Amino acid sequence: MTMNEKLIFTNKTGEELDRFIGDLGNPRTIIITDNNVEAEVFPALGPASGVVRTSPKIVIPAGDDNKTLDTLATVWKALSEMEAVRKTVVVNIGGGVVTDLGGFAAATYMRGMRCVNVPTTLLAAVDASVGGKTGINFNGFKNQVGVFSEPVATIISSEFFSTLPDEEILSGYGEMLKHGLLESADAIGRLLAINPLQDISLLLQLICDSVSVKARVVAEDLRESGARKLLNLGHTFGHAFESYSYERNSPAAHGYAVVWGLVCELVLSHMRLGFPSELLYKVKNYVREYYGAFAITCNDYPALIRAMRHDKKNPEADSINCTLLRAPGVGVTDEVVSEDEIKSTLDIYRDLML
Amino acid sequence: MTMNEKLIFTNKTGEELDRFIGDLGNPRTIIITDNNVEAEVFPALGPASGVVRTSPKIVIPAGDDNKTLDTLATVWKALSEMEAVRKTVVVNIGGGVVTDLGGFAAATYMRGMRCVNVPTTLLAAVDASVGGKTGINFNGFKNQVGVFSEPVATIISSEFFSTLPDEEILSGYGEMLKHGLLESADAIGRLLAINPLQDISLLLQLICDSVSVKARVVAEDLRESGARKLLNLGHTFGHAFESYSYERNSPAAHGYAVVWGLVCELVLSHMRLGFPSELLYKVKNYVREYYGAFAITCNDYPALIRAMRHDKKNPEADSINCTLLRAPGVGVTDEVVSEDEIKSTLDIYRDLML
Repeated sequence: MTMNEKLIFTNKTGEELDRFIGDLGNPRTIIITDNNVEAEVFPALGPASGVVRTSPKIVIPAGDDNKTLDTLATVWKALSEMEAVRKTVVVNIGGGVVTDLGGFAAATYMRGMRCVNVPTTLLAAVDASVGGKTGINFNGFKNQVGVFSEPVATIISSEFFSTLPDEEILSGYGEMLKHGLLESADAIGRLLAINPLQDISLLLQLICDSVSVKARVVAEDLRESGARKLLNLGHTFGHAFESYSYERNSPAAHGYAVVWGLVCELVLSHMRLGFPSELLYKVKNYVREYYGAFAITCNDYPALIRAMRHDKKNPEADSINCTLLRAPGVGVTDEVVSEDEIKSTLDIYRDLML
Repeated sequence: MTMNEKLIFTNKTGEELDRFIGDLGNPRTIIITDNNVEAEVFPALGPASGVVRTSPKIVIPAGDDNKTLDTLATVWKALSEMEAVRKTVVVNIGGGVVTDLGGFAAATYMRGMRCVNVPTTLLAAVDASVGGKTGINFNGFKNQVGVFSEPVATIISSEFFSTLPDEEILSGYGEMLKHGLLESADAIGRLLAINPLQDISLLLQLICDSVSVKARVVAEDLRESGARKLLNLGHTFGHAFESYSYERNSPAAHGYAVVWGLVCELVLSHMRLGFPSELLYKVKNYVREYYGAFAITCNDYPALIRAMRHDKKNPEADSINCTLLRAPGVGVTDEVVSEDEIKSTLDIYRDLML
């Protein structure tokens, strides 16, 4: 299956959105966004875009704990009450919660409307915007329910990022580090050479590079049966850290969980596949400097292993799978990992990071 | 897009189910069914199928009013608690509510598991089992939320039909009449020549014929953008009758609503496209004899028109679309119908039927 999504890189988001909707023949549009984005982004975006000014808006409460079935039901209900039909186009303007939940609502309302994504965070731009993963959290698990469904277009800019808190920039940068590792020694080297909180003018080019890594992998494999599993690098451990951080009531940002997961999975990659230790140490130092560490003791291992067992990436209920690297740019998917290896990896992670 | 679904016609459902799951490499299976089917079908099916005997079961309450978001949430929760993973296979055993809701649950849990459908009613065998339409009712509208997602296989038999009430047989036969009209004068003639309540031994061959009409149309057009709209014959008026029957608290079975819709849309086909009046009268007489009529007065027209406006088949919110026939086997899709024409049609329907 090929990727049909159109990626538009621009720093004139409003104009490009209007142009794209015009190219579709000016169908009726409905905006899905959250209350933070409405307050912070719309005052600047509205004047530049007739679509933003004139479309009815469905405003959901911001934050990952609102990525729920209840919120989804209110969105479906609003679409129904606005008499949306299958040809109405949904425009998701926001971070990953808005694009994931709004994308799922659009993919399922009347068995599928089109949507356009306008990511307003770095994480949504480099991760959620490309690849068609939509969904909600359910029963305590992240993205437990959803579908693969691509937006007809994603409009990516850096114009909304200047107002983002540092944590959000770093969270997005975590996914970029992953893409860099999947691409080449040069690509990860370029990312480790800058401070994303200070060198914002360099970000847009690095985002383009990063999105193109993801887009290329996704185009080969929309439904995550083969090559796409490469993108799970860092995510077996990362999702476990993330789920567990919610259980502990001190939620970790997704990109933070991913970089901590990257450190673990590079450790595993070194042990099993000879991933170069020098680069492992460089990544570890960078992560420690900018992201700190997820604090765990061996008492936390059973909960983390339980979270890994529940991961969508596992082909069978009783195995735990990772994507690992022989070297930067040389990924290996479907590596089945034993509980003992996970425990050893977490031991080394604690030695390196804590 | 082509149809990937495997259709297995058999009167040894249990054995064929086990064989098919074996061909998939004996993955873990979870059965979704309803309490009626569990009571009436499983005692006979269990002894014939290891899959049925040994799989954990998610039992939903029977009936279209349970085709809700609440029921869907309980199914997702049960899948999660049974630690289903993406490679677990869902086996939907039941009527259209089970295959629609169970299919939607499977298509969305972890962004998509595989499912096998085992329809136990005639309507599910000839309609819900083929074509990948899944979903739930929402906010008062039928199938308002769902996705297009095909089962990996559908196992169709007539062995469960002997215990069905007459109304259920006739309801399924309504969809078969529609397929016959879409196929040819011969096909509809064969269907009008028998009494489906008495000539059960003739049914299996007619079901094969009927499913093949639908499968051929669906294979051309999985996502309902073109040819597939042919299958909407009878459904613009039919869905309106069905929705309205729920509003009036005397629910009409789907197939009954469809045959009443067929009479209306053949009237429209005659007026607009010269559909032969002789066949219109034959169909009308058959419908009146076996199905009776949906009783309406002109006071009900506004509610019916409102229901038609909300139909997923309408490309824009303010138009009402029908699929009509120039002659048996010669369908015309996307016929935009005015309110005046709808009122005239309903007037004639009342003359003919009441």
